[in-house]
Amino acid sequence: MTQAIPTSTSTSTAATFTALKCKECGAEYEPKAMHVCEFCFGPLEVTYDYSALARTVTRRSIEAGPKSIWRYRSFLPVASETPIDVGTGMTPLLKANRLARRLGLKQLFIKNDAVNMPTLSFKDRVVSVALTRARELGFTTVSCASTGNLANSTAAIAAHAGLDCCVFIPSDLEAGKILGTLIYGPTVMAVQGNYDQVNRLCSEVANTHGWGFVNINLRPYYSEGSKTLGYEVIEQLGWQLPDHIVAPLASGSLFTKIYKGFQEFTQVGLVEGKSVRFSGAQADGCSPIAQAFKEGRDFINPVKPSTIAKSIAIGNPADGVYAVDIARKTNGNIESVTDQEIIDGIKLLAETEGIFTETAGGTTIAVLKKLVEAGKIDPDETTVAYITGNGLKTQEAVQGYIGEPLTIEPKLDSFERALERSRTLDRLEWQQVLV
Amino acid sequence: MTQAIPTSTSTSTAATFTALKCKECGAEYEPKAMHVCEFCFGPLEVTYDYSALARTVTRRSIEAGPKSIWRYRSFLPVASETPIDVGTGMTPLLKANRLARRLGLKQLFIKNDAVNMPTLSFKDRVVSVALTRARELGFTTVSCASTGNLANSTAAIAAHAGLDCCVFIPSDLEAGKILGTLIYGPTVMAVQGNYDQVNRLCSEVANTHGWGFVNINLRPYYSEGSKTLGYEVIEQLGWQLPDHIVAPLASGSLFTKIYKGFQEFTQVGLVEGKSVRFSGAQADGCSPIAQAFKEGRDFINPVKPSTIAKSIAIGNPADGVYAVDIARKTNGNIESVTDQEIIDGIKLLAETEGIFTETAGGTTIAVLKKLVEAGKIDPDETTVAYITGNGLKTQEAVQGYIGEPLTIEPKLDSFERALERSRTLDRLEWQQVLV
Repeated sequence: MTQAIPTSTSTSTAATFTALKCKECGAEYEPKAMHVCEFCFGPLEVTYDYSALARTVTRRSIEAGPKSIWRYRSFLPVASETPIDVGTGMTPLLKANRLARRLGLKQLFIKNDAVNMPTLSFKDRVVSVALTRARELGFTTVSCASTGNLANSTAAIAAHAGLDCCVFIPSDLEAGKILGTLIYGPTVMAVQGNYDQVNRLCSEVANTHGWGFVNINLRPYYSEGSKTLGYEVIEQLGWQLPDHIVAPLASGSLFTKIYKGFQEFTQVGLVEGKSVRFSGAQADGCSPIAQAFKEGRDFINPVKPSTIAKSIAIGNPADGVYAVDIARKTNGNIESVTDQEIIDGIKLLAETEGIFTETAGGTTIAVLKKLVEAGKIDPDETTVAYITGNGLKTQEAVQGYIGEPLTIEPKLDSFERALERSRTLDRLEWQQVLV
Repeated sequence: MTQAIPTSTSTSTAATFTALKCKECGAEYEPKAMHVCEFCFGPLEVTYDYSALARTVTRRSIEAGPKSIWRYRSFLPVASETPIDVGTGMTPLLKANRLARRLGLKQLFIKNDAVNMPTLSFKDRVVSVALTRARELGFTTVSCASTGNLANSTAAIAAHAGLDCCVFIPSDLEAGKILGTLIYGPTVMAVQGNYDQVNRLCSEVANTHGWGFVNINLRPYYSEGSKTLGYEVIEQLGWQLPDHIVAPLASGSLFTKIYKGFQEFTQVGLVEGKSVRFSGAQADGCSPIAQAFKEGRDFINPVKPSTIAKSIAIGNPADGVYAVDIARKTNGNIESVTDQEIIDGIKLLAETEGIFTETAGGTTIAVLKKLVEAGKIDPDETTVAYITGNGLKTQEAVQGYIGEPLTIEPKLDSFERALERSRTLDRLEWQQVLV
């Protein structure tokens, strides 16, 4: 039953990455399926030959590429000339004028991964990269430990690529996330425990089954996919950096990789460098990174999550300390909000911009609002808020907070009465506001 | 309470459309908010100056446009230089190799509007056009009669554009479609009746309230948005026409507008003309167009819908006769399938290509399969199947048909036992297949 873990590395000349390197001690490794330094147990990260990239990649060469994350292939850790491309990435960067006015900002943009392809969250970026690399490394079964979105994405893209798939989720996930995984036909293990317990179990399975776990033994490749959320914002702003970004924090990886993306494009001369402030968003019910930030700690005290924002409910975040470091050195902030503020954030974004996001996105909008109100985002800053998933997956969260339809008979007078009733209610609410 | 219906037409020089013209008697009208010929009650359609378009639009000028339907603005009935652009369109045309192999086709593509922006159905195309035109014509309240997707889209894009919105839906819609409308804060009228009753009520309201109903008094503009599903396929196939298309039929409008899109690009020289076969898909529980096609009729006998494919359950389809005509003259077919085949179609597409579509898409895939099996699609034809909406909106349809997760404790031995059990089950199922 136990398979050998494949270790072959592709030798295609399309590869621009050079090695895996420990973020802590700097030890280097061949780019195979591993994620932890054998000497110091630090996390491994992919390195590239930036001099070569600076010589060969131009704005024009990127713009001539596919309308997906693969226009940035030279900055991603895959060797194949034909990566798995299901149209992932190049989601809209929407100028959010109505939300900006409501909050009192002058230049606000929403990076909308609620409509990312194929499974409507930013996870499609990391999974497209991880499964392409998994195929190169010879894996035939792929897997993940997931809070929901990652399971959707791994199952869908594995189906498209014809890879066997087994995903692990906490058993109390939202119905839409479970159904949105099962539909693709993978094996789904619903673990009676929280994400951190799921993750620990998966680490054991990764060691014994020879499977490619996108966020464990393939994590160094997987996490690089998030850099495209940095690249795309630069390109979509007309090859400029924003002044301030706000993004949700789960493991912290997304945050650090947007930062890495900005750094890389500056380093190779694709964008003029400037300081960008990085602010992070957590839910009060799972805010170990926000707590470390506020208390000035450089270590994370794990917590037991209890929040409606399940997709970011990681109590022991792997990249938490790096996220704290980035927020500090960029003069950003890490803030957390209540579940009610998260629901209000979802509604605010929907009503002002027509974007329906899940709880993680509600968290980001609520923290954005809180930071503006506290004077921690300047109205003149060009600000980008990252919306990472779709509201149709977490319908439970807003059920009961968005009103009901007015039920009428198919007759004009029934409609007129209902309309009059609703206008009277609106007026009453308005009067209550005035009182 | 009753407002005057605005009738002003924009005079911007950006307009390339010239008039509204009756599809039946050819009478012409100014491009204002009207949809029915005053002489013969035929439907009105937008006309353009194709000679001017042939002189000014090139493949290169389109490719240099925005990554949305607005790259085809010259072929759309809006005058504004700044249409409402929320990133709608330019959805992936996915080469569906695994599904093609399963069906026995050589070149199959999926046009995937399950990930259209912002509300995950092709309706975002028609609504983007209709609300842009509504704004030009001076409407401040927009509305629609909807089977669900249109309500989602109208509410979302109206929110983004700051227009007041009131939508009408049948009261028995799927939960995801109701919640996916309410979240944007419109007035929602849930009518106790089927879509055809909703539609009749809305026609009355359109006459008395001065609202812009996207699919009634704005219908000529609205329906033109579907042409972009034709244009994009041409562009994404490398400026070529496919041999055969399969699309779902509700009112029949989408079908006729893909056809119009192909005709227009041929006429202005953007693509080399050739015959394309048009095949349409309906559910057995609401198949008035398929019935007319099969019985050789050139009129539609309205039916009372009863199917899980609610988004295409229109018993009295406005453009049904035109759809029948196109299928006949292109040597295509119109076929219908059972609810169980629809569910199987949803699963087949998810398991082979990683695309989760709603019931309308399941209908399309099931009809595609049926037509291939009946020898009505040639394996050598380059075939495009249009997937028009997302499966997260109709979760009820597949609930109970996709299995359950395996619930385990967060322990290695619990996982190993579950895995062994699932493999035994797989083997048993396989043995049953062999017996």
